[in-house]
Parts: sequence; structure tokens; C-alpha cells
Amino acid sequence: MHSDPVFDLHRGGKLAVVSTVPLATREDLSLAYTPGVAEVCRAIAADESLVDEYTWVSHTVAVVTDGSAVLGLGNIGPRAAMPVMEGKAVLFKQFGGVDAVPICLATQDVEEIIAAVTALAPSFGGINLEDISAPRCFEVERRLADALPIPVFHDDQHGTAIVVLAALRNAAQLLDRKLGDLRVAISGAGAAGVAVTHMLIAGGVNAEHVVVCDSRGIIHSGRSDIAGAKAKLAALTNTEGRTGGIAEALRGADVLIGVSGGSIPDDAVAGMAPRGIVFAMANPTPEVVPEVASRYAAVVATGRSDYPNQINNVLAFPGVFRGALDVRATRVTEGMKLAAAEAIAAVVADELRSDAIVPSPLDPRVAPAVADAVKAAAVRDGVVR
Amino acid sequence: MHSDPVFDLHRGGKLAVVSTVPLATREDLSLAYTPGVAEVCRAIAADESLVDEYTWVSHTVAVVTDGSAVLGLGNIGPRAAMPVMEGKAVLFKQFGGVDAVPICLATQDVEEIIAAVTALAPSFGGINLEDISAPRCFEVERRLADALPIPVFHDDQHGTAIVVLAALRNAAQLLDRKLGDLRVAISGAGAAGVAVTHMLIAGGVNAEHVVVCDSRGIIHSGRSDIAGAKAKLAALTNTEGRTGGIAEALRGADVLIGVSGGSIPDDAVAGMAPRGIVFAMANPTPEVVPEVASRYAAVVATGRSDYPNQINNVLAFPGVFRGALDVRATRVTEGMKLAAAEAIAAVVADELRSDAIVPSPLDPRVAPAVADAVKAAAVRDGVVR
Repeated sequence: MHSDPVFDLHRGGKLAVVSTVPLATREDLSLAYTPGVAEVCRAIAADESLVDEYTWVSHTVAVVTDGSAVLGLGNIGPRAAMPVMEGKAVLFKQFGGVDAVPICLATQDVEEIIAAVTALAPSFGGINLEDISAPRCFEVERRLADALPIPVFHDDQHGTAIVVLAALRNAAQLLDRKLGDLRVAISGAGAAGVAVTHMLIAGGVNAEHVVVCDSRGIIHSGRSDIAGAKAKLAALTNTEGRTGGIAEALRGADVLIGVSGGSIPDDAVAGMAPRGIVFAMANPTPEVVPEVASRYAAVVATGRSDYPNQINNVLAFPGVFRGALDVRATRVTEGMKLAAAEAIAAVVADELRSDAIVPSPLDPRVAPAVADAVKAAAVRDGVVR
Repeated sequence: MHSDPVFDLHRGGKLAVVSTVPLATREDLSLAYTPGVAEVCRAIAADESLVDEYTWVSHTVAVVTDGSAVLGLGNIGPRAAMPVMEGKAVLFKQFGGVDAVPICLATQDVEEIIAAVTALAPSFGGINLEDISAPRCFEVERRLADALPIPVFHDDQHGTAIVVLAALRNAAQLLDRKLGDLRVAISGAGAAGVAVTHMLIAGGVNAEHVVVCDSRGIIHSGRSDIAGAKAKLAALTNTEGRTGGIAEALRGADVLIGVSGGSIPDDAVAGMAPRGIVFAMANPTPEVVPEVASRYAAVVATGRSDYPNQINNVLAFPGVFRGALDVRATRVTEGMKLAAAEAIAAVVADELRSDAIVPSPLDPRVAPAVADAVKAAAVRDGVVR
């Protein structure tokens, strides 16, 4: 009934599991299955670390969602989320050589999600959490990262944050500005907004120069309606105590980071300082359309493939996991994320243009560079098995 | 450090996840991932049944274990179980064209296993339970089969039972005996023994002529040390009330089915009726070695690939799931299992020899025949979506 290119492409799904060993003869069968396989089982039972060497676990990642915050579509549930998770798995393989299995959970309860992922964790070398709504995603990720001996990475948070930091580094470089001098307004305090704020600060932006807005306006320490991650942002950022909405946040700002899904009025953007930077990443409709943003800003980026400077997580996650898996990292540290951002930025650092501050999502140089940087950082941070 | 053929073959594992769609251009990316994928998500959110058409779910099975009863190795845990589950996934693909994902759970608690499998179920078209010890496996399977809208099949029970019934049909045919006349002794009352007993009775063996032994001897209604599945066997079988051990069970029996892992003394086998049938399926050492069994029996089968008549589950599970998935079956009924056994037996029915009562595990005719029979039975039983 559907017959456009998208539905045609999706018929039957986008993934397959294949054997990497021959199975044509009785001899093959006796090596890959009984009785031969029993020797390998016994060896792993005697030394569990051998699971990395003799199974697919060490190059395999679960892409786990509860379907509560899928793309810009909201809480569409686990079944409707599957095409996105399959797409993610395709990207993992294509760019990182990582075997990824989509797992869409039948529960949106934090405890049940944690229990389910903990239960299936021995089957995977890493856990990529995906499209789990805030604020539940923060607790899910933190508790799983603490409990499991493998990397746990919520891509909507850290994938986005890594690429935003990479893009901002290069934009600042291009404009001959220092990260520490930039005044930054962040619109959106969900999974991406919270992670972007922390990553930018870790990467060199001065926390005192950051103002974050949620749907009710500027986050400041006088607000009684915030808790958890937002309360931490209130304590960390906006030291001059601005109040009001996005227009007040943007007054005199050098940088606007839009990770909200909402829209920002032209006259608020007009209040930014000259020669600014706008990353308007809402999909499919950016918070400020590039045609308007470029009236006020010197560098403009979006989340869309049909404009220049696409801020796309695929620049980060395949290389991050490839690197983490290669050194058997036990977690993803801030150092590893910063190294990933630097590596992404470095790929195009010598060829910077205002319409090319990040590599193309299809640039094959990116994932290997990210993987190498992440490996080195993991070793430096002492989180390798 | 290991360098024999088995370990060489297992290095890096035996599986990979691959993309079935192209991803070379921005256009490819915009179809398989954002923004195109959002259309497919929206369609499934509006009509969940479309998940079968536009994702890989409907041709994908989870092979789930808790590592509590792996091959003959016992409770070796989830990591050491992985090579077997990978092997199973290889066989699923090779013979049934089914994409199978090994899931080795970090828990052996019945409630936690059920919760974890329930949570991940939307990601799969079927659940193949594997190597979960008795009696926990009975409750795990029953409750999951009742709760989930997809087939749940504990292969150690039903895969074994289906192939044993197929083999016994053909052995009886060859010896010109009727199933209903055969006196059957079953050694072992674990997952396989319980399922084999029920399957043989459903397939035409007279329950009154069946005697089952566990490690403490013949199961009879006078025993106070049995409950659950064994208590049901006591009520159903051994109506003449035999007591004692395997020697007493075998006295005058036409058939010995060994699914115990133990060993059976020669003189007990010697007590069987003439022209009998011995299936000694313990691995790697059969309960009675074939050289001894053939002194007393006309047809001998084992679980081993290096003797004739290998009773191997691979004759059943790929076709059972292929058929069940193809018609979107909601469960695996007794009718589907009986149909699978008939189909396996029929493949070699016209070329029966005492050393060829079942097809070779590599016979490519088997899985399609089983799939067709299972599909027809599912439709007959009204368990298709």
C-alpha cells in the first residue's frame, strides 16, 4: 500500500544476522557447534575474559530504547521506534565496523529498564542508550554506567554534545575567538541541552558565560520549579542571574545552541552580539531557519542534511564505540568524549569555511580518527580492562 | 595461546550484523535514517501491525539462555554459554533463513528472566529459550508463552521431543511396529525427558506403556519426593505401578530413550524385549554406547555426529521458527510440533534403513518441509495473527 522510496527501502527491515564461519560439512558443524563448541565454553567458564576473544560480544553493541522520545516524534513506543534503532545499527556498522543489535523495550519504567539492560548486558560489549526521554534518561544512564563493566552511552546526550563541541571549536577558530570568551545561550534543557552544557564547559567555555533556557524560560537559582539536572545547571551557569525568556538569554550572546524543538523569534536572535554563531538543531524545523539566522550570525549550523554544517551524531557514536570496544574500556569518560570532539574538529581544521565547520556525515576519515583519540584517552584515564 | 581448529574458528565469534540497505550517499542516509525514517515510525505508531512489514522484527528470533544447563556442561553461566548460542544463531540462519540474536542473561532467577524477556520481546518475532535448567524452564516457558503475542519455544524440551518422535515413527515403521503397541522406558526427567514423554504420547504412544526414570529411579505415584512436572508424569504414565531403577523400567521394554546424561548398565539393556529400539542421546558419552546397544536392539540412535542416526535438534528448530514466523503465529501449539515431527520423518520415509531413520542434520530438504507443515498446522490451530 505504501510505495514511496522510503517505505520500499524499509520493507523487511534494514538488518540481517549472518554467520562468519562456514557450515557446509559435518566437520564444520562439529567445530562451530557440538561437540567442538564445548571446548570453547569450558575455556570461558575457566577464564571469563576469554569471552572477548572467542565470541562476538567484544565487537557488539545493544542499541536500547524505550521509545519515549524518538527523533522529534515523541513517545511513540518501542515498535514504532524500531526503524530508527535499525538505522542506528546500520550506521554503527558502516562507519565503526561495530555489530549493533536494536533492542526496543516493552517498558518505560526506570527500574524495569535498568533491570532489563542489566540482565542482557553479558551479551554485549557496550550499551548505546537511545531516544529515552529526560529526565529519566539521566538516572538510567548513570545507574547502568555505575553497575555495568562495559561502556554505557546515551547518544542523545553525549553524541550530540560531542559534535556540538567539535563544531563550536571550529566556528570559534574560524572567527578567531576563544571558547572561554564566548557568551553562550542554550535553548533546551532536555537530554541534549543538559549534556551540551556540561560538555561545552568541560571543553573550555566559561560556565559563568552560559545561560540555559527550558520551556519556561531562563534557568536560574531563584526558580522553585526545577530539580535534578536542571537544579545543577542553575547552580553552575548564569552567574549574573538573568531571568526572563530566550530573548533575555540571547541579549549580547555570541552563541545560540538550539536543542529544544521549539522556535525562536527573529527579534530575539537580532539581540545577539555581532559576528555570532547559531546552531539551530531542532528537526525537521530548526529553531531559527538558516536564512534568518545568517542575517545575524557569521556561522550557522543545523541538524539537517539539506543545509551546510550538519550537526549529526553519526560523526561521534561509531568512532566512540569502536575506540571504546577496541581497548575494552569499562566506561566512557569525559576525557574520551573531549578527545572525540577534538578529533572530529581536527578532521576539517585545515580546510575551515563558514559552511564547513564539521565534516560530512559520510566522511570516512572521521570514525577512525575518533576511535584512535578515544582509545588513547581511555588508556590515559585508566578505564581499560 | 589456543591454536587448534576449534579455537581458531571461534576467534572473534561466529556472527555479524549487516545492513541490507545501501548507505553510500546523502540520499541513502536520508532514506534509511533521518529524515525519511520518521515516516515509517509514524506509520507504525498509527498501526502497530506494520512493524512486521517495515522492520526486521518479523524474521528475527532471540536465542535466550541463563547459562544454567549448557550442553552437558551444566551451570557455566551466561558468558561461557555464548559460543553455543552463537552456534545456534548460525544454524537458524543457515537452515531456516531466520535472523537470530544470542541473548545470555545475567540472572538465573525465574522472575527476573521472565521480566527481562518480556521487556525485550517487542524487538523479536519469536523467543527460542535455550539451556535453561529444569524445573525452572517449565515455568519460564509457560508464563512467557502465555504473556507474549509471539512464539516461545524451549528448544531443549520441544526441539528434542520433535526429533525423537520423528525418529521413533520411522524406527517403528522400519520394524513394522505400531507406536501404540510399543513399551517405552525413558531415562531422564529433566527438560528433554518431560517434553519427550508428552510428545510421544501426543504422537501415538500409549501413556500406559511408558515408564520414566529420574536419577532416583522409576517415577510412580507412590513417590513423595516429586512435584510439578514429575508429579504429572507419575499421574500419566506407569499405570502398572512399576518401582525400582532403570533395570526394572527396561524389563520387557521395546524402546529405551536416554536423555539423562548418565550411563545405563549393559545387563539392564539386556532385559529389553527382542528387536528393540535404543536412542541413547547423552553427549558426549551415550547412556549405552552404540556397540553395546546394537547387541540387544535392532535400531540404535545417538546424539553424536560420528555414529549413524544422529538425533539433532537442528532438524526441528530452524523449520519450526521459519514456519511460525512466516504465518505470524502467536504461539507454538502441540499440533505444530506434531506436524514438524511428521515432516522430519517423511523426508526419509521412502528410504528407511536401520542406520538412516532420520535425515542428516545437513539435509537441506528438512527445514522447508518442517516450515510448510508448521505453517499449515498453525493455520489449522487458529494461532495466526
